[in-house]
Order: sequence, then structure tokens, then C-alpha cells
Amino acid sequence: MFTPNKNYLRLQGSYLFSTIGKKVREYKEANPDKRVISLGIGDVTLPLCPAVIKAINKATEEMAHAGSFRGYAPDLGYEFLRSAIVANDYKARGCDIEIDEVFVSDGAKSDSGNISDIFGDNNKIAVCDPVYPVYVDSNVMGGRTGEYNPEKEGFDGVVYMPCTAETGFLPVIPEEVPDIIYLCFPNNPTGGTITKDELQKWVDFAIEKKALIIYDAAYEAYITEENIPHSIYECEGAKKCAIELRSFSKNAGFTGTRLGFTVVPKTLTYDGVSLNQLWARRHGTKFNGAPYIIQRAGEAVYSEEGKKETKEQVKYYLDNAKIISDGLAKAGYTVFGGKNAPYIWLKTPDNMKSWEFFDYLLEEKNIVGTPGVGFGPHGEGYFRLTAFGSKENTETAVKRITGQ
Amino acid sequence: MFTPNKNYLRLQGSYLFSTIGKKVREYKEANPDKRVISLGIGDVTLPLCPAVIKAINKATEEMAHAGSFRGYAPDLGYEFLRSAIVANDYKARGCDIEIDEVFVSDGAKSDSGNISDIFGDNNKIAVCDPVYPVYVDSNVMGGRTGEYNPEKEGFDGVVYMPCTAETGFLPVIPEEVPDIIYLCFPNNPTGGTITKDELQKWVDFAIEKKALIIYDAAYEAYITEENIPHSIYECEGAKKCAIELRSFSKNAGFTGTRLGFTVVPKTLTYDGVSLNQLWARRHGTKFNGAPYIIQRAGEAVYSEEGKKETKEQVKYYLDNAKIISDGLAKAGYTVFGGKNAPYIWLKTPDNMKSWEFFDYLLEEKNIVGTPGVGFGPHGEGYFRLTAFGSKENTETAVKRITGQ
Repeated sequence: MFTPNKNYLRLQGSYLFSTIGKKVREYKEANPDKRVISLGIGDVTLPLCPAVIKAINKATEEMAHAGSFRGYAPDLGYEFLRSAIVANDYKARGCDIEIDEVFVSDGAKSDSGNISDIFGDNNKIAVCDPVYPVYVDSNVMGGRTGEYNPEKEGFDGVVYMPCTAETGFLPVIPEEVPDIIYLCFPNNPTGGTITKDELQKWVDFAIEKKALIIYDAAYEAYITEENIPHSIYECEGAKKCAIELRSFSKNAGFTGTRLGFTVVPKTLTYDGVSLNQLWARRHGTKFNGAPYIIQRAGEAVYSEEGKKETKEQVKYYLDNAKIISDGLAKAGYTVFGGKNAPYIWLKTPDNMKSWEFFDYLLEEKNIVGTPGVGFGPHGEGYFRLTAFGSKENTETAVKRITGQ
Repeated sequence: MFTPNKNYLRLQGSYLFSTIGKKVREYKEANPDKRVISLGIGDVTLPLCPAVIKAINKATEEMAHAGSFRGYAPDLGYEFLRSAIVANDYKARGCDIEIDEVFVSDGAKSDSGNISDIFGDNNKIAVCDPVYPVYVDSNVMGGRTGEYNPEKEGFDGVVYMPCTAETGFLPVIPEEVPDIIYLCFPNNPTGGTITKDELQKWVDFAIEKKALIIYDAAYEAYITEENIPHSIYECEGAKKCAIELRSFSKNAGFTGTRLGFTVVPKTLTYDGVSLNQLWARRHGTKFNGAPYIIQRAGEAVYSEEGKKETKEQVKYYLDNAKIISDGLAKAGYTVFGGKNAPYIWLKTPDNMKSWEFFDYLLEEKNIVGTPGVGFGPHGEGYFRLTAFGSKENTETAVKRITGQ
């Protein structure tokens, strides 16, 4: 008799953003006259920049003719894209990453979840709390956690590292030694950052304990301050202990276009096993490359116009972040993030619960945000707003929330 | 200490088509003057048809403007595409499949591998032998097999069902009852087909034994004869025991464009667990939708022009299949398939081993095919040629092989 993967039954409720989507749909259906503004899901709103559109059009034209048509892409990504990634994201920052350490994918969400495929069953994971839900959920599905523990508001067997105002939104190295450590900086959801010196401590810890770091750098394009690393490979020794996830979603508006990549250094070996080879095998067996047209779009992000145009988009969103941060702070809110990240993390007023504040904002102000507790128990009492709306909507939203 | 997923170490050699690719690259480097024709990997060569190109151009234009830009797609696929699939692939054939049973993905290879995510650890799988390697390899990675057994030329704990000329290239219901049965018709690699009555026997068997069938119908567009089902849901009761995989690669030339879908009926429950809900959760957690532009391209395949144009492409490849079948048969080869499938499966001459014949064709005739044994031990002594080349190349290849 067939038996389903019952680890899935341990998952709590549905995926956070699906729940929010459902609540918003229901509210809109019941109140068709209200104009709801979403600063909730981290989804961009600016159109693809001209350099990217031009590249897609060119690639599409190639696909229309037998002489230039492209069938199956190389499993691991086209060399034109991988070499642009290596040159611009790594060599330019002094990181010695090679082409065959870069794996092109259909996006960082897929990679965040699929990477757990190459983990053994008995690894103990550590995550920040609050945290992007995919890291934990994918490991729950893979059976690398215990049951959900309502008292802990988390899964048994997972090391949760509280990141609150008190810790400066940084995790503290835990007493219980984990085997896999998920870090995301600039952070989703708190918008917090880590300095190179602080990150180096995690690299040293991982090497000492033979742990693996999964470093999610999806938001690196939003870094505006010095001394904040764009890649974990800026830290010494990171190529011996870290996998890095990257995305085109937030720096180039590819949320609906789907492209990302993962760096798995060849020096990453545990117990004599090369993770680079394991991931290559996973990619070669369960994936068939990102679409040619989309890989050309990704290449265009690294062209001179592409860089200029996407930088302008990032600046536009960072300006929105400032509008939110400044507006809410002026109205008495306690706000964090927003300086090196597209996320603003605020304390709910009057000790309201996160979901209570979500309902209040949706129903009274017609604003959609994300309840902090949706990212973990230490997100309770916090709330996430994103800077990805239009400037006009962002200004309107701030006015609505603050009543000013 | 981190431990890698050591199930991967059980895998034999590298992925079949990577191995072939490497051999061909090496031959070409050593013999730059030779014009090698590939009838190996099942990769299409005709350009995307005009209706698809038009749809991509239109969608790209939408992505260039704020008012029509699309961010994150619905996890499970856009309704415009899912409803076109339901209407054309199912309702039109009398199959009662609903929109929320269709999950759009980046292709059937991803789905073939990822579907094992929702399987429990202790299921026993059954596969045809020869077989598309992903079914077995993904289960090896997931720990649902034993070690590789050189004597068996396969993995312990896997039920291999020989499909040879003697069985009419159909599997025989095995004595050892499996929990999961992979079936692919029209078949890759043999090009064989199954009648509706024969398939009904498998459905009845699965229901009786509470087994799950994974039905890969990636090649259904090539069916030319009556009484061959295009979908397993044409069989009575299949919605209680079968998941169906579909692709846009072979019917519309999307190998480099990446689009597929999986049907998981809501009536598919085991031990009280709904596989539809499990797969929805998997999709929502580890995937973020196929690109908007590509989903519009998929929709165009179902338009009037799209249907006409893609049907012409399929006919072109079927004509090639006939050129190969007839040419080789005339020269004394024993050939199978090619009538309802883009694959020709031939007996190697003089009892040559499959890889021996591969090397012979590559080195003496400069033709790339796929060694039958690469698909399993019962593929030994067979060889696969594909009809996806140009007509000119196909004719040249047949002339070279037959010397006529």
C-alpha cells in the first residue's frame, strides 16, 4: 500500500502568504468599494527595465528561427550567465568563485527548499526567529525536525535563535550546536544587517563545528552602508562551510520572471563528500535548466544599461522604505530595517498581537502587511511592511496608518 | 557535524545524457572536421511556432509597463493556463479533471523528480526496464531503494518490469506487489504504446492493491492510432490511483522554454491523506510558479493557430520517425516504435552491446544515438534514435547508417 510523506502533516496551517492572500481576497469580496493597498508580500511593482525587455525580445526572436533556436539548456545554466555572475557578483568583490560553483535556477525560493535534498536525515537545523518560513518548512517536510510543539510555538529538534530589538536583530551563537545554520542578510523579515566581523564569527563557528551555513543573500542589492558584506564569501574560510543563495527577484524585479542561482564551492566537503557534486547531480536529475529567454534576461541585468536601470529601481524602493520609516517614526512608531533592505519591521502599537494589528490595518486602514508572528514566535508584537509598492501607494499607506 | 545525503552515493555514474554529452564533446574536439548528427537526446529542433512567439512578445510588452506588469504568479499556475489545459487536454477527451487538480510547473523532468517529495520513505517502486532514468534516480536520492546491485544491474528493493520485444514492450503485472508504479506511454525509450484495455488492467491492479501510479504522458501528442489513451484518466477509476505528468516540450517544442504540469486528483487519498493537498503544499513551499511570459506561451499552444501550428510540428517529427523506421527496416534492422512516438527503438546488429554500437555509430558514422542499456539492463542490445532532427539531417543519418 502506498504511504504518503506524513512529515507534511506536521506543518502548521498553510503557507503564511497563502493565508494572507486568502484573508485579503475575502475582505475585498466583502468590501468591493475599498481600495486596499498591499505592502504585504515582498512582491515588486516596477516593470522590467528596458535592458531586460530588450534582451527578452532578442532571445524570443532567436527562438523563432531554426538557425538560432535553443532546446535544452545546460542543466547548470548557460555559460554566458554564469560567467556574468562570477565576474560581477564575486570577482568584482574579491571573492574567488568559479563558474562551476554557480548553479542557475528558477529562483531562490526553489533553491531554499530544494537545497535540503542534499542534507542527510539527521542534521539539526538552526534558524533565526523570526525567519522566512521556507527554511523550516522544507526541513519539516524532509523529516529533519520533530513534531510541532505548541508550547515552544515551533518544531521540536530545531534550534531557534531569537532576533529581537534586544539582540540588534542578530542571532546569538547557540549553546546547542546545530549541523546546518540558515542565515539571511540583509534579513527578511526584519530588514536587519550583519557586519563582516560579525558574519566572520559565524563562519569560524561553522568551520570549528563542521556545520554548514546556508546564506541567503537575496537582498544584497539593497545594501547602502559600508562594511556590510554582499556575499558570505567576503569572509575568510566561507568557501569551506557555506552555500549562498541569490535571486534576481528583488534587484531586477524578476518575481514573476523567475531566476536565481546558488553557489556551492568545490571546497565544500563533509565526510569526504563534495556538496558541489551532490548539488550538480540534483540539478541534473530533478531540474532541466531555466528557460533560455529568461537566462538572457538575467544576463542583461549585468550589462551597463542593465546595471544602471536596476540600480535606479532599487533606489526607488529604498526611497519608499525611507518614506515608511520616517513617516511611522514621526507618528511615534518604533521602526527598524529599511536602510539596507526593502523591509520595515515595526513594533505593533499598544502591545497589539501581530495578527490583531494585521486585521486592524486591513479593516480600518485597508493596508495589507505581514504579521511578525507569521515568521516565528519572536516576531510576535512586530509587523513587516515592504517598500515594493509604488511611491504614490506608499505615501498614501503611510498617511492612512499615521492619520497624518 | 553536517552529514550529506549519502543516498546520492548509491547512484551509478553520472546522468545518462551528461555522459553522452561528454563523449560527444570529446569526439568533436578530437575530430573538428567531422559533421556529427545527433539523434540522441530527445531535444527538439524546430523553432517555437508563430502563435507562441506572438504570445511571448505580447506578454513581454506587458512586463515592460507598470499597469500590466506581473509579479509573483499564483503558486499553482495562472487560471488562464490551467483552464485551457482542463478544457483541451481533459474535458475534450471526456476526462473529468478540475482546475484545482492541475499544477503548472517548469517542466516534466522537474515534476518527475520532485513528485517523490510527497512519498513516504518505505514505498517500494516498480519501473519498466528500460526506463527514463529520473524515476529511479530520484527515488535512490530519497532513500526508497537499496544499494546498487551489479548482478541485477539495478537497485535492490526496486521492482523492474522487463519490456522487451517478447512482451510487446509492455510491462507484465509483477508478482511482488509495488506501492508506486511508474508508467510512461507512449514510452520513452521504446516508443511502445498501451491500449486502453491494457492500461485499465493497471488501474484496476493499483486500486486493488492501494498502489499509486505515476503516469508520464509527455508524448501523448504523438499518438496517431485509435484506442490508445492520451490520458490515464480515460480509464475508469484512475482518479483514485493515478497522478499524470504532462509536458509542453515535445508537443510544442518547449525543451528550452520550460513548461509542464501535473494532475493530482482530489479523489486521490491514501490513509486519509489527500495527495492533492500535499502536492499543493510542496508547490507552495518549494516552487514559486513558472514565469508569466512562459505561461502565456503555454496558453497560446491551445489557441486555434497554436493547435494547428504545433500539430504540424508533431507531424514533421512523425514523418522523420517514418524515414528512420522505414530506412532501417529496409536495410535489415529490426525496428520498433516511431508510429505513436518520436522514438525509434532498434535491435543492435550482430548482437552488439548498446555502448559498443554507440561508439561505432559515433566514430564510424558520426551519428549520436542513445544506448538502450543506459535505460536499464533489459535495454541491452537495443538502441534509441529520436525523430527530433531536421528532415535533412534525418535523411542523411539514415543514409550513413544504412550505407544506402
